[in-house]
Amino acid sequence: MPRPVVALAGGVGAARFLEGLVQVVPPEEITAIVNTGDDRDFFGLRVCPDLDIVTYTLAGIVNRETGWGFRDDSFHCIDALGRLRDDTWFALGDRDLATHIQRSARLREGATLSRVTAEIAEAFGVAVELLPMTEELAPTRVVRRDGSVADFEEYLVRDGAPADVREVDLSAAARAAPAPGLLEALEAAETLLICPSNPVVSIGTILAIPGVRARLEARRSAVAISPIIGGRPVKGPADRLLPSLGVEVSALGVAELYRTLASGIVIDRADAALAPEIEALGLAVRIEDTLMRDSKIAANLAAAALALAGTRA
Amino acid sequence: MPRPVVALAGGVGAARFLEGLVQVVPPEEITAIVNTGDDRDFFGLRVCPDLDIVTYTLAGIVNRETGWGFRDDSFHCIDALGRLRDDTWFALGDRDLATHIQRSARLREGATLSRVTAEIAEAFGVAVELLPMTEELAPTRVVRRDGSVADFEEYLVRDGAPADVREVDLSAAARAAPAPGLLEALEAAETLLICPSNPVVSIGTILAIPGVRARLEARRSAVAISPIIGGRPVKGPADRLLPSLGVEVSALGVAELYRTLASGIVIDRADAALAPEIEALGLAVRIEDTLMRDSKIAANLAAAALALAGTRA
Repeated sequence: MPRPVVALAGGVGAARFLEGLVQVVPPEEITAIVNTGDDRDFFGLRVCPDLDIVTYTLAGIVNRETGWGFRDDSFHCIDALGRLRDDTWFALGDRDLATHIQRSARLREGATLSRVTAEIAEAFGVAVELLPMTEELAPTRVVRRDGSVADFEEYLVRDGAPADVREVDLSAAARAAPAPGLLEALEAAETLLICPSNPVVSIGTILAIPGVRARLEARRSAVAISPIIGGRPVKGPADRLLPSLGVEVSALGVAELYRTLASGIVIDRADAALAPEIEALGLAVRIEDTLMRDSKIAANLAAAALALAGTRA
Repeated sequence: MPRPVVALAGGVGAARFLEGLVQVVPPEEITAIVNTGDDRDFFGLRVCPDLDIVTYTLAGIVNRETGWGFRDDSFHCIDALGRLRDDTWFALGDRDLATHIQRSARLREGATLSRVTAEIAEAFGVAVELLPMTEELAPTRVVRRDGSVADFEEYLVRDGAPADVREVDLSAAARAAPAPGLLEALEAAETLLICPSNPVVSIGTILAIPGVRARLEARRSAVAISPIIGGRPVKGPADRLLPSLGVEVSALGVAELYRTLASGIVIDRADAALAPEIEALGLAVRIEDTLMRDSKIAANLAAAALALAGTRA
């Protein structure tokens, strides 16, 4: 059954926002459509970074310092694996590995990623519906100026997110079928939110899934929260990726990206001066404290986004 | 190139014996043919208990108290997995898991078990050649009196090795192709040893591989070390499995099992009184301290076995 609030979500920023959202909307009324463009097989284990970050955060077990993985996890397995192979650059904690082992086992048994994601969320007591954007592996690729191509996590983690990005290749997402129920969820939602996630490699990937952008543009009612504060991303490599699309690294640049599908945007107090220019794009603007240092700020931010969406106070 | 000393091996008893053997023969001259009847996929990970016990023991990293797994390993992953599924009864340590992840990844890439086993042994600095008895999954099954059938590790670990065994089913091994080079190794060996391992589910499984028993019987020169001391196995469920074959749980019972393929057997001082009866079967007997409490005793035992085989003093 479609849920009234649907949010497009990436990783850490989205997870923190959703942590606020569940304080002002019952989690049973929320669907998060989660980016899977960063998903990758490591040594035969399917790792879904954004799904896991959102799950662990909503379950209250995330490592709050890094934003990913289990709190107080150990890394004995990946360390031992380093004796056996040389591609152990992605830090996978021992407890975290259980999730990847289980997901990989279920996928091999023939379960869909949606099904497995729901099972894992249930096991962790997460009541928000987490919907992967697609059941397929649809890796985002980063093309560097030297012509080399890497999967997103290779670019981000292995290579350290260098600033020489020529192009972000979302063609895999553009060829992927939306997860069952995804387009229906977008159509039936009373409120559409775009979490404060990377507009290129998190939200952009979801928007690249066939039918998603069209559904959002047809309604043009989404409310976005800018992930850029004072011209810099809170976390992640947006400042090195937005320029590749000719987009300014600012709340205004984000508003320009979303202008055809959003009716409003929440921006940080630090960016208040940009409000007139954003309003000139046809977007309603709300100015808030958007740096989610704690879950109270996140709840306030969620309430502000809902108020801007006009459906809840 | 075939190696001069070839030993049939199971788990803990074999590993400790091999630890002694490498003190009296250069490890580069030894091939251990290892039972894989206990191998099993757990959550998509191929676990090979006997290969790992032998590898870890020869690498000097085994947990000496349990005889299996890494010394000082943690169990965070398997504990976390217990939240996601209910079949986490096989204790897999975090560092140990790296071996299974690597093996499973390489098998899926198309590598043979022999190849992967050699790679892992090399990574652990093990110079003894470890040859799985077959490249195939050939699970030993235990049939209980109530008619229920379990894989060996299910019987041993999950069910606690109850004494109601009706039959040990080695038909999978009997249908499996010997690993490449295995029969040649048996033919070319100067010395053939049968480690002090379970005669039914460790050595019996290897003997069930097509061609193995015939090669050993054609030579009838193997020297066995009895895994039974004073009518009881040092470790494992031999006392609950031998009766299912109508075999007495004693060094004499073991000698009877091996009489067609061995020329001699090393038995414990505790069983000295059985020597005349064993000799009456046509086997040379050597009486030694066979309880390998330390590696010096293991080395003495290995030297005694080689002496009995007549090739080395």
